[in-house]
Amino acid sequence: MSATTARADPFKPAARVAGQRQDVWSIVNEAAAASPVQPIVNMGQGFFGYNPPKFALDAAKEALDKVDCNQYSPTKGRPRLKKALANAYSKSLGRELDPETEVSITTGANEGMLSAFMAFIEPGDEVIIFEPFFDQYISNIEMPGGTIRYVPLHPPKDGATRTSSAAEWKVDFDQLEQTINSKTKMIVLNTPHNPVGKVFSREELERIGALATKHNLIILSDEVYDRLFYVPFTSIATLSPELYERTLTVGSAGKAFYATGWRVGYLIGPPHLVKYVAAAHTRICYSSVSPLQEASAVAFEKAEGEGFWEQSRDEMRGKVDLFCKVFDELNIPYSDPEGGYFVLANMASVKLPEDYPFPPHVANRPRDFKLAWFLIKEVGVAAIPPTEFYTDKNAHIAEDYLRFAVCKNDDVLETAKERLRGLKKYITQ
Amino acid sequence: MSATTARADPFKPAARVAGQRQDVWSIVNEAAAASPVQPIVNMGQGFFGYNPPKFALDAAKEALDKVDCNQYSPTKGRPRLKKALANAYSKSLGRELDPETEVSITTGANEGMLSAFMAFIEPGDEVIIFEPFFDQYISNIEMPGGTIRYVPLHPPKDGATRTSSAAEWKVDFDQLEQTINSKTKMIVLNTPHNPVGKVFSREELERIGALATKHNLIILSDEVYDRLFYVPFTSIATLSPELYERTLTVGSAGKAFYATGWRVGYLIGPPHLVKYVAAAHTRICYSSVSPLQEASAVAFEKAEGEGFWEQSRDEMRGKVDLFCKVFDELNIPYSDPEGGYFVLANMASVKLPEDYPFPPHVANRPRDFKLAWFLIKEVGVAAIPPTEFYTDKNAHIAEDYLRFAVCKNDDVLETAKERLRGLKKYITQ
Repeated sequence: MSATTARADPFKPAARVAGQRQDVWSIVNEAAAASPVQPIVNMGQGFFGYNPPKFALDAAKEALDKVDCNQYSPTKGRPRLKKALANAYSKSLGRELDPETEVSITTGANEGMLSAFMAFIEPGDEVIIFEPFFDQYISNIEMPGGTIRYVPLHPPKDGATRTSSAAEWKVDFDQLEQTINSKTKMIVLNTPHNPVGKVFSREELERIGALATKHNLIILSDEVYDRLFYVPFTSIATLSPELYERTLTVGSAGKAFYATGWRVGYLIGPPHLVKYVAAAHTRICYSSVSPLQEASAVAFEKAEGEGFWEQSRDEMRGKVDLFCKVFDELNIPYSDPEGGYFVLANMASVKLPEDYPFPPHVANRPRDFKLAWFLIKEVGVAAIPPTEFYTDKNAHIAEDYLRFAVCKNDDVLETAKERLRGLKKYITQ
Repeated sequence: MSATTARADPFKPAARVAGQRQDVWSIVNEAAAASPVQPIVNMGQGFFGYNPPKFALDAAKEALDKVDCNQYSPTKGRPRLKKALANAYSKSLGRELDPETEVSITTGANEGMLSAFMAFIEPGDEVIIFEPFFDQYISNIEMPGGTIRYVPLHPPKDGATRTSSAAEWKVDFDQLEQTINSKTKMIVLNTPHNPVGKVFSREELERIGALATKHNLIILSDEVYDRLFYVPFTSIATLSPELYERTLTVGSAGKAFYATGWRVGYLIGPPHLVKYVAAAHTRICYSSVSPLQEASAVAFEKAEGEGFWEQSRDEMRGKVDLFCKVFDELNIPYSDPEGGYFVLANMASVKLPEDYPFPPHVANRPRDFKLAWFLIKEVGVAAIPPTEFYTDKNAHIAEDYLRFAVCKNDDVLETAKERLRGLKKYITQ
């Protein structure tokens, strides 16, 4: 061929990565770095402010001394971890799981979700997700060519004036059913929910399950906070054998054991679904990190005997209570979480100074971005503006809220509370 | 909508994962498990039979005690690792690298390659790869919708009767240029090459680079064995500033430090390419494993001072020599590697018994699959049939070869040699 046919723009990125809007994490980190209050208290991203339990860390160190634990694991995961998970989840899902065919390990729950979409979504297929959503869902569904349909959770109408349970964020089931059509292939659940803190009730799950059965949908249930619930927790996969057959349940050793940087996630479900998730995962990452898979296996084996699940749940609920006292003091209503470690506080009463110098990339976003920027700069506490987890159309629902991650040491939470008291002068009741 | 519009086959997998041909790793593992010789010596997959160096393991254990090393890392990688890599590669690439914009960490080199394809390939774009190829390239290029064009490396014509240097596997440059057209966006290199063991010469790289420049292609250079070379090694990115601008160089801490299960890879290149690779990686895995990134950082900082690079190169070359003696004894010619840890042995002279009971899924593959099966069952040594790394059209090129991974302890290599002597009675000279 001749040189004249060469591409004019050889380095043009694919559309899937070309988007230029600054993501919320960069905006928050950039504001944090530039804040006059240093160091800021970072309650933005949901990483833990403390280490995994000793039995998990010890297991990781022991794994590092074993030759096979430093080399490739089987693509579907290490046998010991699949077995430990099958044992743990046979109990919580109430059915005997086969570790070889009903469990597959992924590189964090994130790559697990992507593997599920890659396994089943063809261009043009539709996937239903609830708003607010975990932002990675969007690119993970779009990568295999899926189209996303959004169904908002509706907060209580008086959320600006009254603290209420996260249970009061409701699904409009008519709206949900109207969103389903012949192209719909999957519906994504998240319970306990990030950022709302809602634990879907058994009745809600039964209604969602009935729709999924009626319209023959695969359910992808993101349950990475499944050990942190403060009201009864139900996995949709447990509701009936028929629902198990169409459900992939997603979990995370990183979330369970305070180790978000370990990148050990997993999917559990019937063999006819799990086998294709494993095939997709193999094509994406080949296999997942070996020594930390082994450590996660040991941690799942030991957690119950160590009383770790109760302890972690009690500790986290204690942190929610400890932190939320400052909102009670300030008369800032919040959505009291039923699970997980996020608190949505409603800042409608916080009056932002009219001439406050927001940079353009914050000024042109909804009010919660301004609230987040203002809190970082003026009081030195970082939180996440939840409209990032909404489509533009529905962003107004959450524009007065901020999301705080309470998975931090108690002294850090106390510092945050002390700083947040500085908001008092901006609050109009 | 009514239930009549529900999908007939709700669990139908996407085409990208629906392929059913058994992969080579499963076939070899299945044969190994069923072999009468137990345990077999596994020289199939390229994992190390020994542990990472102590300075790397110690660093991993120390990282596990640090809170931030167990939590999410920045999506582009931990600052310390990016800096350590920028330092190491500023030296080997002969230019000052900016750790913030010219290095990005991925979940193993595998997900790094996928991120590069996801970053730049749109449906219909073409990517050129050489045969034999690392099998994951195929699904990684097809996932974003790319079309693959294959260019075979040509082995020496007398490879069945004479041991020769891996350098004698040659590119037909006319064939390469004829494969380029206006849809071609990338060309993938692999040097030192798996499975051939070829280190592309400077002259070959200059010719490939000239074609890439003439036709305005991005070069993706998989150099994961870049520390294991036994002849002078050249990175194509070093040949000229113009080539650096169009090249992504892929490396692997797992390959460098005997830890294939750590899943720490990286891409190095100009900011206008690296930024989109990082964006794709963020969408695929969000971030990579934190404690082992930190350990890899320390390992790269210490490797030179510890004399590790020379030592690992000398040791691996020693293993090649130690192992290949058995082929000299048996008069089995091989392709003497210039780099990496794979040896391609030519088994044209091994006569398989005519009535040997190969299972159907082996019987219908090229001769190298039968050779691999036979070796596992009869002598208890597993090797990989390289036609797995070829299109059907060109598989005949490699049907007499088997790939042996020598990255194993010396006593394991000695056992393998002793067992391979059992082939003598099947050899016709």
